[in-house]
Amino acid sequence: MSTHIRARDLGVPFLGGPGTWNAITDVAGIEVGYTTLIEGQRVRTGVTAIHPRGKTDKRPVFAGWFSLNGNGEMTGTAWIDESGFLEGPVAITNTHSVGVVRDAIIEWQIQRGAMHQSWSMPVVAETADGYLNDMNGFFIKPEHVWQALDSAASGPIAEGNVGGGTGMMCYEFKGGTGTASRKLADAQGGYTVGVLVQANFGLRWQLQLAGVALGRNLTDAAPFSGGQTPYSEQGSIIITVATDAPLLPHQLKRLARRAALGLARTGSMAGNGSGDLFLAFSTANPDAAQTTLRAAPVEMLALNVIDPLFHATVLATEEAIINALVAAKTMTGHEGHTAYALPHDRVREAFLGR
Amino acid sequence: MSTHIRARDLGVPFLGGPGTWNAITDVAGIEVGYTTLIEGQRVRTGVTAIHPRGKTDKRPVFAGWFSLNGNGEMTGTAWIDESGFLEGPVAITNTHSVGVVRDAIIEWQIQRGAMHQSWSMPVVAETADGYLNDMNGFFIKPEHVWQALDSAASGPIAEGNVGGGTGMMCYEFKGGTGTASRKLADAQGGYTVGVLVQANFGLRWQLQLAGVALGRNLTDAAPFSGGQTPYSEQGSIIITVATDAPLLPHQLKRLARRAALGLARTGSMAGNGSGDLFLAFSTANPDAAQTTLRAAPVEMLALNVIDPLFHATVLATEEAIINALVAAKTMTGHEGHTAYALPHDRVREAFLGR
Amino acid sequence: MSTHIRARDLGVPFLGGPGTWNAITDVAGIEVGYTTLIEGQRVRTGVTAIHPRGKTDKRPVFAGWFSLNGNGEMTGTAWIDESGFLEGPVAITNTHSVGVVRDAIIEWQIQRGAMHQSWSMPVVAETADGYLNDMNGFFIKPEHVWQALDSAASGPIAEGNVGGGTGMMCYEFKGGTGTASRKLADAQGGYTVGVLVQANFGLRWQLQLAGVALGRNLTDAAPFSGGQTPYSEQGSIIITVATDAPLLPHQLKRLARRAALGLARTGSMAGNGSGDLFLAFSTANPDAAQTTLRAAPVEMLALNVIDPLFHATVLATEEAIINALVAAKTMTGHEGHTAYALPHDRVREAFLGR
Amino acid sequence: MSTHIRARDLGVPFLGGPGTWNAITDVAGIEVGYTTLIEGQRVRTGVTAIHPRGKTDKRPVFAGWFSLNGNGEMTGTAWIDESGFLEGPVAITNTHSVGVVRDAIIEWQIQRGAMHQSWSMPVVAETADGYLNDMNGFFIKPEHVWQALDSAASGPIAEGNVGGGTGMMCYEFKGGTGTASRKLADAQGGYTVGVLVQANFGLRWQLQLAGVALGRNLTDAAPFSGGQTPYSEQGSIIITVATDAPLLPHQLKRLARRAALGLARTGSMAGNGSGDLFLAFSTANPDAAQTTLRAAPVEMLALNVIDPLFHATVLATEEAIINALVAAKTMTGHEGHTAYALPHDRVREAFLGR
Repeated sequence: MSTHIRARDLGVPFLGGPGTWNAITDVAGIEVGYTTLIEGQRVRTGVTAIHPRGKTDKRPVFAGWFSLNGNGEMTGTAWIDESGFLEGPVAITNTHSVGVVRDAIIEWQIQRGAMHQSWSMPVVAETADGYLNDMNGFFIKPEHVWQALDSAASGPIAEGNVGGGTGMMCYEFKGGTGTASRKLADAQGGYTVGVLVQANFGLRWQLQLAGVALGRNLTDAAPFSGGQTPYSEQGSIIITVATDAPLLPHQLKRLARRAALGLARTGSMAGNGSGDLFLAFSTANPDAAQTTLRAAPVEMLALNVIDPLFHATVLATEEAIINALVAAKTMTGHEGHTAYALPHDRVREAFLGR
Repeated sequence: MSTHIRARDLGVPFLGGPGTWNAITDVAGIEVGYTTLIEGQRVRTGVTAIHPRGKTDKRPVFAGWFSLNGNGEMTGTAWIDESGFLEGPVAITNTHSVGVVRDAIIEWQIQRGAMHQSWSMPVVAETADGYLNDMNGFFIKPEHVWQALDSAASGPIAEGNVGGGTGMMCYEFKGGTGTASRKLADAQGGYTVGVLVQANFGLRWQLQLAGVALGRNLTDAAPFSGGQTPYSEQGSIIITVATDAPLLPHQLKRLARRAALGLARTGSMAGNGSGDLFLAFSTANPDAAQTTLRAAPVEMLALNVIDPLFHATVLATEEAIINALVAAKTMTGHEGHTAYALPHDRVREAFLGR
Repeated sequence: MSTHIRARDLGVPFLGGPGTWNAITDVAGIEVGYTTLIEGQRVRTGVTAIHPRGKTDKRPVFAGWFSLNGNGEMTGTAWIDESGFLEGPVAITNTHSVGVVRDAIIEWQIQRGAMHQSWSMPVVAETADGYLNDMNGFFIKPEHVWQALDSAASGPIAEGNVGGGTGMMCYEFKGGTGTASRKLADAQGGYTVGVLVQANFGLRWQLQLAGVALGRNLTDAAPFSGGQTPYSEQGSIIITVATDAPLLPHQLKRLARRAALGLARTGSMAGNGSGDLFLAFSTANPDAAQTTLRAAPVEMLALNVIDPLFHATVLATEEAIINALVAAKTMTGHEGHTAYALPHDRVREAFLGR
Repeated sequence: MSTHIRARDLGVPFLGGPGTWNAITDVAGIEVGYTTLIEGQRVRTGVTAIHPRGKTDKRPVFAGWFSLNGNGEMTGTAWIDESGFLEGPVAITNTHSVGVVRDAIIEWQIQRGAMHQSWSMPVVAETADGYLNDMNGFFIKPEHVWQALDSAASGPIAEGNVGGGTGMMCYEFKGGTGTASRKLADAQGGYTVGVLVQANFGLRWQLQLAGVALGRNLTDAAPFSGGQTPYSEQGSIIITVATDAPLLPHQLKRLARRAALGLARTGSMAGNGSGDLFLAFSTANPDAAQTTLRAAPVEMLALNVIDPLFHATVLATEEAIINALVAAKTMTGHEGHTAYALPHDRVREAFLGR
């Protein structure tokens, strides 16, 4: 698995050192599962599921979120703000299937005794795949959600046209799912930050790879996908940031905000049509969510040593987005629309001179 | 219709003058529809739908929202914050049916050509009816949503055990749906404020009616419903505030925050288990959401004349909650649980001396 | 000291049990100091200083804040939101003296080596005393700030026309500084919540004491102060909530929001002219703000046992406001304006029948 | 004036077309004034004042703000959030002088009858100049504030070591004040966006100019200023975004958030020590702040034509920061510290090959 080509394979120079798999799963315990639906011409969609502590460990994680541009949906955020906890898996799908995914997660939690209160308010986010997928076909069914939840695993994970990212576009190329990670030096705490994005945004002229304004020079490389104008962007990006650093909820909001800076490094200006919603959680403090009168002991990273985690978040977000672009393959779908892959040779040429 | 008893019929003295029906429908154009599901022992739930401009007028309204305590769900809020617009109907249901209601609204919008962008992110809120309804039975189906949407009407509306409020409890009595309104004097602008609540919160000792600490004196009136302790509250309230005053999105947030003050007047302290999420919208400025380069002309109420609208919001919210309590009838449901109605004679006695 | 009359002395029945002094100083370590300036006809103002851990313990406290209505100033809040910490004393003064108080606190901190970063951003809040004080006279000088900071003490504290509250009005009576506390039973954790308010808001018709709509029945009791109309309120309230319960920053925001519910119990509808800004902090976790790579151990109260702290916050806020009203004495000041005290006999009559 | 060298003079390629002066003053009506204090070794500080509609037009402007990282101060934001209005000039100074500047603005407003309510809560922001200026010397006096306010003018404006930016550093070079603008094509509305920054942030390895990672290659160019480590950043940036486009307050928040993306394009990762606070206002709708019962007519730009304003904000912010770096000259100050200017020849070499 994960033998697909990634941005580093094409010579794109990123700052900072990744973890073992350069993936969100480098944060110990995290499991990711995909359901990918590709059928006939109309169906190009799916579900991505992220278990913060794996499928079987039901303990909540501290979390925070940020909306850079709210033309999107992320359910469950009122409770994250209030409690500081994310109480179950996170799922990402297409815009018009958020409801079915949400309720299916509840049913899955009921069957597994995995609810923390007498009710559940799952976190489900989305981007719109209406160009390649018939979004109004409502193809996602509860069983697709359970499949993503149950098949989740650690280790290297697929990128590009998979899971919720199956039918997405990015910078007017084919987009989708991408991931990356950063591992801090021991002298900076040795923590890991992992990022997973569902990338479906951007105008080609905005695209930057490691600072190189590649987008403006790729007007000949492939037809523009999506029918946008240079003056109006439609699309979205969901960014999930995970870490094992002991951050409290208000500190995780800070990480979520840094995802915006990583996004900006790839050229995005967060267009009006974009649902740019970012979630950050920490797998530290596994026993924070107790239910007795005794206060729970938790650990909190000091303010003055938090910068390396900010750097890691920015850099892993940048790389995860480029990874999504590099991994996504040309796809034809709904109404015969085609989204073209970022041409690898042009990237290689820019960075490796060949 | 609306021949049911309301709080004013029992002598509860409220400040301010209501509109024609003392209901959210006093704001011109608003239509409310209910689907009420009561079957066997397990099914006590439903859907409430509110069309800000009626079923057929698809133009968005300016809106704002506020979370007093976020142990609840209200979808679609990121886009309200970002755009300032509410682009379709609002629905309220039970916690575990938010997803199906959300997606069903999208399908309804597709069929009616009622989406404003190429995608839709409906606003659906909830409270939990797990004591009287088998919330994990997932009884709400898309057709129930469409029925509520299609049957919506102006005029007097039902209260108590109807719509999304069917299986709810309030201050350890039977709760549910309530509504009220205030009409300002012409010298204050002549605007109307209407409120609809789905009330499912509170401990009996907290209950106040028009300042009278009735709850503490009703320990003998009926068994306590819901199995709560005096130290831990479970439950929620969704408050929808509507007005025809020309308020901009940031001004509507102010109205949403005032709903908290009306709630407090009935005794609530917003317990940890409560999802207290409030939405406010204005039916003024019908053409604000245009799509051309020409800026849309809109009207904005001056700061120094806004207080009467704050008063109206607080007072109508207070009365809508008491109306929900007064209208709700004793109900037995899931697992044989019974929630008892607020005894009307004791209220009459407190205020009318008989 | 503290031999002044308080609301309970007049028979006003409040829920919940107070701490030793029924004051914010019941939270161990808290010290409060006042500078009260009353000179000639024009000067009716002052400064209130609150040291969360006393004058000499410089360790930050966790904190959170909430703006119910932002027609006011509370400096330093961006850093509270970001860091979760309040890094020094809190001061309250009149609107036009916030700047001098802020900079004077920095100078005080420099002299005492009490800054936590290389810079300081003090938290200073205000209400406007322009009716009784010539607010444009800029009477507050740095030495007045240092005097409040240096004279701060634990124990019973003065109320009414003292400190920053000297020239304030409330519900069209004389207002000012008030305080109250609640002590939880050991079975609920035994924690203390203390509140201090600078009360300068409200229309007389809105005033409620323990649910009794006293304001509307006191139109004959004293001239209305402040020249407001029933339709437009000017004024503000700053509420500081302190506790020794181990709450994290996001939990303290929850307490700050509950202050709004206590305020509402006295009748306020948060008028447009009101700066209703609330701060909550916890003296627990004294060593949370460390500066090494090792994560700091902190304690966090469980969600399901937090309700009694919410109740305590609401109830102590309500009582602190009424205490401010009861303690304040009739005052004549700037331009001969007079603000009349709430008539004690009328309160006694309402609650004690005499 | 403004004969100083700017980034474009060194060949740095920026996207988008600037206005006449490539300055915030390209937005008609805006006036900017500086007081620059350079005395002896200890004094390297100042005040920057921005009048949204010029010195004499007192009408409020719609405004919104955003905190990317709140280790900073911007007073007056609670009222911006609440009212949607900025009611006077904006000032920027050093951290420990925010108070004196705030109160001095009030006094200036009183003398000119320029207050909109009976009280004033000015917007004053800051960055810390403690490396080059003795920040604890409190050198800023009221007369310095008035001088900046009274000397403000339209037209080309100074950059670098002027006004509040006098003693600042950026990316471990000398920083300070910078400005830039973008003028949209008529087909996109013809609006202007102007930006002014007080830049005092960043680590050298992070610095990017138009995507080129220049910072990492300038380790030999000049000593590093400020004594930071690669793992911990101290510093801040205040960004003011102005436009003549008819945006409502909630839309101006969107512009304020885009400033973060422009900042990210220069390499910033918003370190913990940084107060990254951004303000956006619109000079359109001059009569929005009326005080009668009649609703004010205002204009609002449509959502689907707003993207060019987002692009302009991002791009003008990026250029304003680089302009600050390019204009700032090497400075020696407090305790003999020296901050070195960005070497122009190295920038020219990177972009012009000479």
